[in-house]
Amino acid sequence: MNAVSSFSPTDEFYMRYAMALAEQARGFTSPNPLVGAVVVKDHKIISEGYHEYFGGPHAEINALNNAQTNLHGATMYVTLEPCAFTNKKTPPCAPQLINAGLKRVVIGSVDPNPMNSNKGVRILRQAGIEVIVGVLADEIKRQNESYFKYIKQKIPFVTLKLALTLDGKIATIRGQSQWITSKTSREYVQLLRKDADAILVGIGTVIKDDPHLTCRIAPKKKLWRIILDPNFKIPKNAQVLHQRGPVLIFVNKRKLNKIPKSLGAEIVPLACDNEFDWGEILSELGKRNIASLLIEGGAQIASSALKSQIVDKVYLFYAPKILGQGLGFSDYLISKNLESALKLKEYSIVRCDVDFIIKGVLDK
Amino acid sequence: MNAVSSFSPTDEFYMRYAMALAEQARGFTSPNPLVGAVVVKDHKIISEGYHEYFGGPHAEINALNNAQTNLHGATMYVTLEPCAFTNKKTPPCAPQLINAGLKRVVIGSVDPNPMNSNKGVRILRQAGIEVIVGVLADEIKRQNESYFKYIKQKIPFVTLKLALTLDGKIATIRGQSQWITSKTSREYVQLLRKDADAILVGIGTVIKDDPHLTCRIAPKKKLWRIILDPNFKIPKNAQVLHQRGPVLIFVNKRKLNKIPKSLGAEIVPLACDNEFDWGEILSELGKRNIASLLIEGGAQIASSALKSQIVDKVYLFYAPKILGQGLGFSDYLISKNLESALKLKEYSIVRCDVDFIIKGVLDK
Repeated sequence: MNAVSSFSPTDEFYMRYAMALAEQARGFTSPNPLVGAVVVKDHKIISEGYHEYFGGPHAEINALNNAQTNLHGATMYVTLEPCAFTNKKTPPCAPQLINAGLKRVVIGSVDPNPMNSNKGVRILRQAGIEVIVGVLADEIKRQNESYFKYIKQKIPFVTLKLALTLDGKIATIRGQSQWITSKTSREYVQLLRKDADAILVGIGTVIKDDPHLTCRIAPKKKLWRIILDPNFKIPKNAQVLHQRGPVLIFVNKRKLNKIPKSLGAEIVPLACDNEFDWGEILSELGKRNIASLLIEGGAQIASSALKSQIVDKVYLFYAPKILGQGLGFSDYLISKNLESALKLKEYSIVRCDVDFIIKGVLDK
Repeated sequence: MNAVSSFSPTDEFYMRYAMALAEQARGFTSPNPLVGAVVVKDHKIISEGYHEYFGGPHAEINALNNAQTNLHGATMYVTLEPCAFTNKKTPPCAPQLINAGLKRVVIGSVDPNPMNSNKGVRILRQAGIEVIVGVLADEIKRQNESYFKYIKQKIPFVTLKLALTLDGKIATIRGQSQWITSKTSREYVQLLRKDADAILVGIGTVIKDDPHLTCRIAPKKKLWRIILDPNFKIPKNAQVLHQRGPVLIFVNKRKLNKIPKSLGAEIVPLACDNEFDWGEILSELGKRNIASLLIEGGAQIASSALKSQIVDKVYLFYAPKILGQGLGFSDYLISKNLESALKLKEYSIVRCDVDFIIKGVLDK
């Protein structure tokens, strides 16, 4: 039994504060999770910290190190279970919390990492520390949705982003798609890119729009660009090949002879002939520590990803326009009947300038 | 100068109250407006009334008649300018307000009716009554959007209602459309029907779904059913022909010889061959005192109405589903480019059970 049914408002308050600390590092910890920690003594916050970047000290250690006073008898709130395993770069956190003399540790969520899960809790309890588990657990799981998927399945969390009209069109009949949505919506997309480890588009988008596929608001962030290009049609001078950060091109294995040397991109051969095997693609990305993938590409890519049920989450940026005939994002998808249509399990609606965004989780 | 730039919170408070009174009669006053009136003396409401049904006494008269005390020196708040013209069933209101000894009359909006506009204000002022005009005028205009259009243009205010998926589909490739949205959304549609004078569908909908097209929540309300049936294909036993209330069928004039006697519906011949002339249709409806029209019919009707720019307002009931290939509501509409797409000038978003509703005004 790790979870109890209800928690005190005080515990929830400090946990929410720890979540906010964690949130500051969004986009920079992957494939590690976002974690925040707060130390409270006599109803006062006496120290705090968060996991700031991949490879850096864990949140708990930062909170211990940032303390100006003795932590003996204090309570630590930490969003994710402290680690207790040793086969990694940093020493485990749990023993250091014990050494610091903490009296109580309140944990948001158990670590889904099979190497650690519940070990941290056990070690702390064995040392006589009072341990509470599960405060805001659902929210913390959402905060770390990509980590929670990746650490167990070793494939990235997949977000599909689309800019569309009220009638579901992503381009006119002549292919015009710039711009369907407002400038503000396009800026919002930069936030999604900041949160992702990789952006994926199809070769059609590369040829038509010649995009950079970079993150303007976090230019130093490592962001993979993934291109599905079965017949290897990418032009040598495509912008996407000449930006900072790694590029991965998935190519049909029969077309490998076409590939020139010194392209500035890694080529991954794929077995499939007609359509890409998303299982294979995601597995290749997982091997490269890509825990979150943002799919931005056209109707074929969107339809194929939806059909394969590999999409975890959608961001549908709707412009308040009705286009009529044009390219629908789901044009390559078929549902036999209404019952077999894809469904959003839950969703929220956000207004964004003149547009609105449907942010939804697919029911799988 | 009828409008002043700002009003006291007290005036707005009582005007909002008068609007709420008016709202109670929604669906039953057309083609007359919704009007509410409150009489206030010494900071107390001493009487109130509203226009309850078409042909009944006006709001102001109800408020005068409902008073238990002397109204001398009181203030009346009335959402729409009191009438001052005589060529109608009921005697004009303005002189009766003067006779009642009111000291002050606060008016929401000037009456857009050219026969009355500003006459009521002038008569009251000439009698020495202090008259304030324009309190919550925009809200009152929205409350009476169909009246404001109809009284000036003599054609109905047009609302297009659609139930669709996130990708803009109103039916599967095989034509299945029941039900895309939730039961709650379908119940909400009853409210729209209650607010309308007429519902319009195409013959395709009649043949496929055989709907009743009645208003379940206001069965006694007079609700016209309008069917666009150019080639006169309606089956004699169609449900829509055998419900309470009048039915109007628009038929191509060349097909008039096909029409049997005693159909139980009024036939209106239309000149147009290929596509209906919405101007002609709306004008025919206007002649029958239809001030508000709800279009509920399929893709051809929706596309055609949108293309003709006769739609004032849309209610898009989105189910959180992605269907893929199917019947899109805008399949018969073409925009050359993104700039020429139809736009919503303003819109609001309401969640409705698992669905959401985009309620928008078209930019024309």
